[in-house]
Amino acid sequence: MGHEMRMLGLDAGGTSTRAVLADARGQCLGYGVGGRGNPISAGRDGAADGVMQAIGVALDAAGCALSEVSVVTAAMAGHSVSGGDEEWLLERLRAEGFTGRLTFEADLLATYCSGAAEEFGYAIVSGTGACVIRVGGGVIEKAGDGLGWLLGDRGSGFWIGRRVARAVVQDLDGTGPFTAMTPGLLDHLGLGAESAGGAGRPRALEQIVRALYARPPVELANLAPLAFIDGDPVAARIQRRAGEHLADTLLSVLTLPGPLVIGGGVLSREGLVRDSFLRRLGDDAQGLELRSVPDGAVGAALLALRAGGVPPSAELLATLADGVRRLR
Amino acid sequence: MGHEMRMLGLDAGGTSTRAVLADARGQCLGYGVGGRGNPISAGRDGAADGVMQAIGVALDAAGCALSEVSVVTAAMAGHSVSGGDEEWLLERLRAEGFTGRLTFEADLLATYCSGAAEEFGYAIVSGTGACVIRVGGGVIEKAGDGLGWLLGDRGSGFWIGRRVARAVVQDLDGTGPFTAMTPGLLDHLGLGAESAGGAGRPRALEQIVRALYARPPVELANLAPLAFIDGDPVAARIQRRAGEHLADTLLSVLTLPGPLVIGGGVLSREGLVRDSFLRRLGDDAQGLELRSVPDGAVGAALLALRAGGVPPSAELLATLADGVRRLR
Repeated sequence: MGHEMRMLGLDAGGTSTRAVLADARGQCLGYGVGGRGNPISAGRDGAADGVMQAIGVALDAAGCALSEVSVVTAAMAGHSVSGGDEEWLLERLRAEGFTGRLTFEADLLATYCSGAAEEFGYAIVSGTGACVIRVGGGVIEKAGDGLGWLLGDRGSGFWIGRRVARAVVQDLDGTGPFTAMTPGLLDHLGLGAESAGGAGRPRALEQIVRALYARPPVELANLAPLAFIDGDPVAARIQRRAGEHLADTLLSVLTLPGPLVIGGGVLSREGLVRDSFLRRLGDDAQGLELRSVPDGAVGAALLALRAGGVPPSAELLATLADGVRRLR
Repeated sequence: MGHEMRMLGLDAGGTSTRAVLADARGQCLGYGVGGRGNPISAGRDGAADGVMQAIGVALDAAGCALSEVSVVTAAMAGHSVSGGDEEWLLERLRAEGFTGRLTFEADLLATYCSGAAEEFGYAIVSGTGACVIRVGGGVIEKAGDGLGWLLGDRGSGFWIGRRVARAVVQDLDGTGPFTAMTPGLLDHLGLGAESAGGAGRPRALEQIVRALYARPPVELANLAPLAFIDGDPVAARIQRRAGEHLADTLLSVLTLPGPLVIGGGVLSREGLVRDSFLRRLGDDAQGLELRSVPDGAVGAALLALRAGGVPPSAELLATLADGVRRLR
């Protein structure tokens, strides 16, 4: 296989899409960002637009045409890997001269591959949602949580944001303790300081409740940063519980030691969430090698190379990661 | 004031409306049920239709015309008691010959008055939502929770139903213990027994998740009855926690001893929820006289009489309650 072969990895998410163009040695030739790339949330046409936008930027950067690309691998949440549901993207690729092969992978596997070339290991992502996977033989062996904001995602940004909102309304309502997060939430919502309201309730409470129910529930995830303050016992408890939930989810899939790739903003930062996560793991944490990654872009490229016949290795991963880092 | 005076109490809810026609001595002259009566959920026209339907049935039963009614009192959730927002109902009443006075009250105050004529006391309702009030001088002095399914309603039917769904998906997902509620939920959703699915997950899990996200979140409240089974530790824990949450909400408004009127299906039945509710209240339970009521119909009539100048009393309440019981 010559290194003139071109592979394209796509990390297609609910808010943006990243495209990485690489050759068979893992040299990163182009990198591009586009709009929303998941057909479940953006619709088929919207997702195809976002993906093609990212691809266009990456190809332009490399002075390369889609007709020179052998493999496109799209990593995304909830996309059935089995065939029959790829036309929304394949048609658009064909229209631009693509004659190669299109494959799909789970976004969590791309996250894993952004940090690990090993055939066995784990990935945990806590962003808006929360999910863990155990990887064996290079594929997902077992998944935990990832059940969405209503039924799961324990320890996720949504979970934390909802706890923030609940703690603040309980503070104002008198059913919970004082919390320093209250002024933060009022600020966030652009509301003034509290004053008397109807039926023995502060007016700020009515305003917060009205403002939060007027938005899609999942936007509560935007409130998560309000929990990352120092010196507030209520906020500290939310952070600790988030870490414990994430540890419990990981423990549900944990068997042998291996790398643990960490994605999403909640566990990536140092602090109470990470500390309580590790404490809850206890001795099991000894066998895990923690590696934080910003997203699944590098992993999507590694998976595209794998689909093109290039076996993953630590060196290949390092080359890809270094190249993507230089280009973005 | 002669007993030829007629007053109409309306318990206008999100799914149905009850109308009680009474005279000044508390004799119940007519009773009627109509459609949805809350303009927030049913829209102004829809709510007015539901209310007028209930009124029509009650008046027909008594052989009475709306022109003979002095006061109409409508009890409903979330309706601003202050004026200016009554035209949606007043116009329809006027069109049918009503020349009297229309007043609005909170639905929780009507629930309270269905069980208590005392000027001081408490009401707790746990149905789809959960809320408590402290009544003083015959008006709401302080409210706790009632903050809706996303931010509050701890211990409500929605809260329980969501816990049921989460326990079942955690059972199938392997992140939580076995629970006997799983076959119950599969049955409820019309799904078959579990079988292997993609990415190391049982297919039943994917089916349940898809089915539950396809509905409005608040419909999780329909799953609450699945928690009321014997001998399942997970279900028992949900029931106990619901009772504790309801007790905590009540404790947040509790001051002096008094009657505690209980509405909604969760706390009305004997069992673990009620037991853990009372245990959590501890010594504070001693000062409370528990009285369960089916709804706010009797209380709405009591409030209509009060608006018509008839002071509430235990005798008046007993007469009204007895009359409504006979007519429905």
